[in-house]
Amino acid sequence: MTTAKRTLSDEARIREAIDNWAKALRAKDIKSVMSHYAPDLVTFDLAPPLAYVGADSLRKNLEAWFPTFQGPIGHEISDLHIDVSQDLALCRSLNRITGTRTSGEKTDVWVRATVSFRKIDGKWLVTHEHTSVPFYMDGSYKAAIDLKP
Amino acid sequence: MTTAKRTLSDEARIREAIDNWAKALRAKDIKSVMSHYAPDLVTFDLAPPLAYVGADSLRKNLEAWFPTFQGPIGHEISDLHIDVSQDLALCRSLNRITGTRTSGEKTDVWVRATVSFRKIDGKWLVTHEHTSVPFYMDGSYKAAIDLKP
Repeated sequence: MTTAKRTLSDEARIREAIDNWAKALRAKDIKSVMSHYAPDLVTFDLAPPLAYVGADSLRKNLEAWFPTFQGPIGHEISDLHIDVSQDLALCRSLNRITGTRTSGEKTDVWVRATVSFRKIDGKWLVTHEHTSVPFYMDGSYKAAIDLKP
Repeated sequence: MTTAKRTLSDEARIREAIDNWAKALRAKDIKSVMSHYAPDLVTFDLAPPLAYVGADSLRKNLEAWFPTFQGPIGHEISDLHIDVSQDLALCRSLNRITGTRTSGEKTDVWVRATVSFRKIDGKWLVTHEHTSVPFYMDGSYKAAIDLKP
């Protein structure tokens, strides 16, 4: 197989992995979400601390976050860009998270996502995930949770 | 040259590029900072909007940001992790930005940085940069600019 063909096939497999990850997230299926992560994952997440080290710390995070939504979580991926080279891939996108919290509050926020994948034993797994919103530089230091692409 | 040797040498060259980039940033040398970026760069930055497309938009950003500091900018890189595969590299680190603003205000903030490099015509250039702080989930939605690694 030529490098070009292999890269195309790898990109298709990563796109499929991202689709399946998003489906699992929407369904709040922790086991299925976690199946996409490498054990030595490092996450830069929306909430403090600066970094979560290891897949277990992400799992605890999701176990706390999922029940804050009534029913399923809305998750839409936009402007997805995938860059693959051999066994490493870099993906970036703008993701919209929507839903109703158990408090009754509506959530509708666009976040930036940068995700790296490693092909490990033939399977593309997430090794690093950076999710954020910017913040306003007007002295309020408020997270910019009201932006749209 | 074996793949392992080439990867080691590539990692050393990327580390050198990051060192030079940081030196240029500290000196507020826009031309030298910009020499590290690919023209089709996409940046997810600390300030809105969600994304900056193209190196020119980053340049405008830096041209506005650099003069807000009295003298040089402090920039320290910690926990740098570099993952290289062929012509693609993924770097993550925790960076400390310090200095005195022209307003007299002191800045001392740790940010998360995820940066991807592409080897283009033999030179490692930044194609994507994601810099952020998390925000507090206590209802204040304040950017967490007071965290330490």
